[in-house]
Amino acid sequence: MRAEIITVGTEILLGDIVNTNSQFLAKELANIGIDVYYQGTVGDNETRLMESLNEGLKRSDIIITTGGLGPTKDDMTKEVASKCFNQELVLYMDIWKDIKSYFSKLGLELTENNKKQAYFPKDCIILNNPNGTAPGAILKKDNKMIILLPGPPKEMIPMFNDELKKHLLCLTDYKLVSKTLRFFGIGESSLEDKLIDMINNQKNPTIAPYAKEGEVTIRITAKAENTEKANELIKNVEDEINNRVGNYIYGYDDTTLEEEVAKLLVEKNMTIAVSESCTGGMVSSKLINYPGISQSFLEGCVTYSNEAKMKRLGVKKDTLDKFGAVSEETAIEMAMGVAKSLGANVGVSTTGIAGPGGGTDEKPVGLVYIGLYINGEIKVKKCNLAGSREKIRSRATSEALNLVRTELIK
Amino acid sequence: MRAEIITVGTEILLGDIVNTNSQFLAKELANIGIDVYYQGTVGDNETRLMESLNEGLKRSDIIITTGGLGPTKDDMTKEVASKCFNQELVLYMDIWKDIKSYFSKLGLELTENNKKQAYFPKDCIILNNPNGTAPGAILKKDNKMIILLPGPPKEMIPMFNDELKKHLLCLTDYKLVSKTLRFFGIGESSLEDKLIDMINNQKNPTIAPYAKEGEVTIRITAKAENTEKANELIKNVEDEINNRVGNYIYGYDDTTLEEEVAKLLVEKNMTIAVSESCTGGMVSSKLINYPGISQSFLEGCVTYSNEAKMKRLGVKKDTLDKFGAVSEETAIEMAMGVAKSLGANVGVSTTGIAGPGGGTDEKPVGLVYIGLYINGEIKVKKCNLAGSREKIRSRATSEALNLVRTELIK
Repeated sequence: MRAEIITVGTEILLGDIVNTNSQFLAKELANIGIDVYYQGTVGDNETRLMESLNEGLKRSDIIITTGGLGPTKDDMTKEVASKCFNQELVLYMDIWKDIKSYFSKLGLELTENNKKQAYFPKDCIILNNPNGTAPGAILKKDNKMIILLPGPPKEMIPMFNDELKKHLLCLTDYKLVSKTLRFFGIGESSLEDKLIDMINNQKNPTIAPYAKEGEVTIRITAKAENTEKANELIKNVEDEINNRVGNYIYGYDDTTLEEEVAKLLVEKNMTIAVSESCTGGMVSSKLINYPGISQSFLEGCVTYSNEAKMKRLGVKKDTLDKFGAVSEETAIEMAMGVAKSLGANVGVSTTGIAGPGGGTDEKPVGLVYIGLYINGEIKVKKCNLAGSREKIRSRATSEALNLVRTELIK
Repeated sequence: MRAEIITVGTEILLGDIVNTNSQFLAKELANIGIDVYYQGTVGDNETRLMESLNEGLKRSDIIITTGGLGPTKDDMTKEVASKCFNQELVLYMDIWKDIKSYFSKLGLELTENNKKQAYFPKDCIILNNPNGTAPGAILKKDNKMIILLPGPPKEMIPMFNDELKKHLLCLTDYKLVSKTLRFFGIGESSLEDKLIDMINNQKNPTIAPYAKEGEVTIRITAKAENTEKANELIKNVEDEINNRVGNYIYGYDDTTLEEEVAKLLVEKNMTIAVSESCTGGMVSSKLINYPGISQSFLEGCVTYSNEAKMKRLGVKKDTLDKFGAVSEETAIEMAMGVAKSLGANVGVSTTGIAGPGGGTDEKPVGLVYIGLYINGEIKVKKCNLAGSREKIRSRATSEALNLVRTELIK
């Protein structure tokens, strides 16, 4: 079963609004197990819309359109779709009654062009719209379907969920289940390298790597006649991935690095204090976005200057003079200093050169040290990060969070 | 001149991400004066991508693709586009060198499949990508063009603005100049209300209000035969907007609130210290993103707990007991405390209830106090902010920065 989504509307073609309808429908269809191979957008133009429908019907069983069901002359999706199937429009008296009562309820004036919204092909399935005046419809011809949905997401989404979904579910006989594995510390290409045979031979489940903002995810998606069997299929693949690169997995589905760290701290009843130089508050800020963090987060210090590093954290002048602010030694003293100040179990620090200026041959832009003090022990990680100032700072933040995480799960 | 946008990627077909690339490109092309009649999305599949390119080339002069330029086998947009134009791929040595140095800098393992990103058709125009490893390209054949852009918006948008736009502008015969006015402290609808006659009668220049993350911008865009004339047209409109709502404008074009604050501090040779409770490091982090801030930023304190507020900032136990941590009084003591600790000219503080829990009738979620100490004077601002925890924190950060800004320009 193959479907195609066509969104209709000049406001999308001009970029006035983001096309969120396509995403919503694509996700729902994937979950139901209906393949979507094409999405398209076309304006309110008869010729081009007709062309798109005809193209789509050649390659797909179902076309779902959104938009163009309104009362004005511009709105023509229903008219063009009926023409495409060679079906005549007739007045549906009950719809017309509904529209009239909708208008009188709102105290709005009813104009003759509102009647247009009550015309549909004779034998179509009407999809009710409690949130607007434009009903949707399922048009059928031979083995093909055109499904008409309204454009505004507030009308389209409830119509999909409450009216259309049950019809679509009857068309497929299996379930689709996905699980996302989240990686840190390994790039997309070297992850793929290690799983290349699995990716090349994937079928069911499918294995989709995806890179975004310094982390890589793999989505495993299985099709089966029920959820249990789909989960079983996923587990087999997941186990094998775990065998090969499990040490880079930090979480599943919608979690984040900071959420994992915050959860571990709260679970283990441990406290943390943070001292940041180049990340300048990002590590603290990430942790504090976790609502339950207050019992664990003791304090954060943004010690950007040497003076603050000495005064706030007790970093020795000697250390700064001898090794510099961006050094293993300073990172360690920062982490220890902040932990000991309020007696936290964990102290984490960042110090580095975020750029664009300030780099030298010996200490180039992107050099960052992460210091960690945890229950009396010391760790340091040296990172060489690339990108803009913002990217280097954001990556250093992730590195710091990940260092805390890996030590907490030991 | 007619263009068509094709976004390539299974993650869009499956509805994993919203297709914001199409909107961005559609808007930009509309501004340049290039018509877009179709937008399409297709997965990483050779046959279907080839079909889409061929279809598109029949009806449009330019096809712009995004996505599918990565190093993995899945990524095939460049390969299919070259095949479509019957052009052979050759290794571009300078690109390959760039990729190798990018990887070695990151300390990442370079795999053979990364080399794929350095192959392009012989006579194409390369579009540089400072934000990733995948360059883009303009492929030409006869009177048709296929333009290849990367998928991640953080790479695609700068590449469009800095590399591609100038080529597209050559295709049309007028100049387009834009200026963005940035507002803080006024909502989109009340701004529009004050400019409604101008917006309704706009033609050239166009006036486009846009709301995003707590701030509103207005983009004025003029078309003329040369830049000078376009600038003149813009100035007339800008002057009128300035007359009406100029006191809400904080900056122009690509600036940010934090950049304005940081610039003012550096210019005036003033120092700042920050103490944050609910914003948890976001204010510091924003300021530190300004490369020249080191001479002005003395320190930041993330004092989320009462203990840290007392120990670090000298907030009195009495104040916390009597008025609570979220109060005008605490905000003031936090701001003064942090300023005096290292002798900063400016101390700014945030304390509030970011939610989702912790609200009461008297102190609901979203209540935030911003404290400001500036050269011996005290200011407090009470804010009632709405939204998720993250949104409230981010808005409180903007409010804090704006309070500093307005006092600095007095």
